[in-house]
Amino acid sequence: MTKPAPKLTPKGLATRARIVEATARLIYEHGVHGTNNELIRRTTGVSGSQLNHYFPDKEGLVRAVIQWRAEEVIAAHRANFGALDSIDSLRRWADWYGADELAAERGCGYGSLAAEIIKKDLDLHEELAAGFARWQELFRDGLRAMRDRGDLRPDADPGHLTRVLMAALQGGMLLAQAARDLAPLREALEGAIAYLTTFAPGPR
Amino acid sequence: MTKPAPKLTPKGLATRARIVEATARLIYEHGVHGTNNELIRRTTGVSGSQLNHYFPDKEGLVRAVIQWRAEEVIAAHRANFGALDSIDSLRRWADWYGADELAAERGCGYGSLAAEIIKKDLDLHEELAAGFARWQELFRDGLRAMRDRGDLRPDADPGHLTRVLMAALQGGMLLAQAARDLAPLREALEGAIAYLTTFAPGPR
Repeated sequence: MTKPAPKLTPKGLATRARIVEATARLIYEHGVHGTNNELIRRTTGVSGSQLNHYFPDKEGLVRAVIQWRAEEVIAAHRANFGALDSIDSLRRWADWYGADELAAERGCGYGSLAAEIIKKDLDLHEELAAGFARWQELFRDGLRAMRDRGDLRPDADPGHLTRVLMAALQGGMLLAQAARDLAPLREALEGAIAYLTTFAPGPR
Repeated sequence: MTKPAPKLTPKGLATRARIVEATARLIYEHGVHGTNNELIRRTTGVSGSQLNHYFPDKEGLVRAVIQWRAEEVIAAHRANFGALDSIDSLRRWADWYGADELAAERGCGYGSLAAEIIKKDLDLHEELAAGFARWQELFRDGLRAMRDRGDLRPDADPGHLTRVLMAALQGGMLLAQAARDLAPLREALEGAIAYLTTFAPGPR
């Protein structure tokens, strides 16, 4: 969780949030190395000493950006797809990503941040893994509910199916970005959901 | 294909190849922005004027690196998995990646290069897409042979199944890197191959 320094006033919290949000967008556009203090100051109107007050080092700022991006994608999922506890809601989820033209250009907000940071010499793996884990909890909870309800067989493993879905999303995004075409993303998600449906009960 | 400038002597070709290979490794370790001419010169022992002779601009050098990485992964596939035209050979392929400890740390040589470059302002999308396409041809050809032989039903789409496999590999790699654990990659590939087997003929 985002843990602000103690004693931040509401105004201080708002400034901190503004820095994090602006930096998230800058990293998305310019990468981690391309996002320096000067660019952040110019974009946010925050002074160097203010920036230094909230984020004494870049690693702390990037950590806050990872947390912000994770919260963002999780909030978007909750708002758009509810509990993700039916094949229909998962199909709506897949269709949503499969129609996201910006994704073919820029990829997943969280996934491309992860891919960008993972190669850097910043020690932020645990933060990245934690963000993916929190995001994946939504799917695991939904799939578990489906299994408990009997929409999936008892041998369906919600954790496994979640990882298959998330890998399809992330890999499909990379292929879509390279091809500048959403088709590989759509097909990857379609395949993952078709695999999921093989765990539906009933006569086969 | 790699298209060297005309009139390169065998020695010139070897120097050029040495530059490309060294740059590929440098980009893998330091990223595109972290790989500058000085680092390349120091690593290869090539002079600035030589480097400039073979690669007048960075885009051309990175393009050659993309081609080299694509050839490398394709050659490794051919050597290790033959025609990839059976479920067994695809399982061997999945097991190979699923046991590649370096992958959990650094990801796929080609995929992480793609993820790195895709966000940069270099105009190399077509080259990246072409490399993925050549790599994917191996799978498409193998899956087509399986279908023609009757190991997959006539409604199995080799292109679709290839994209599902490749997305699982790339997305699984990203999750494995974030988690520093190969399990998500193994599960993603397992899911993709299980999906593939739903297209096997026979009584169900």
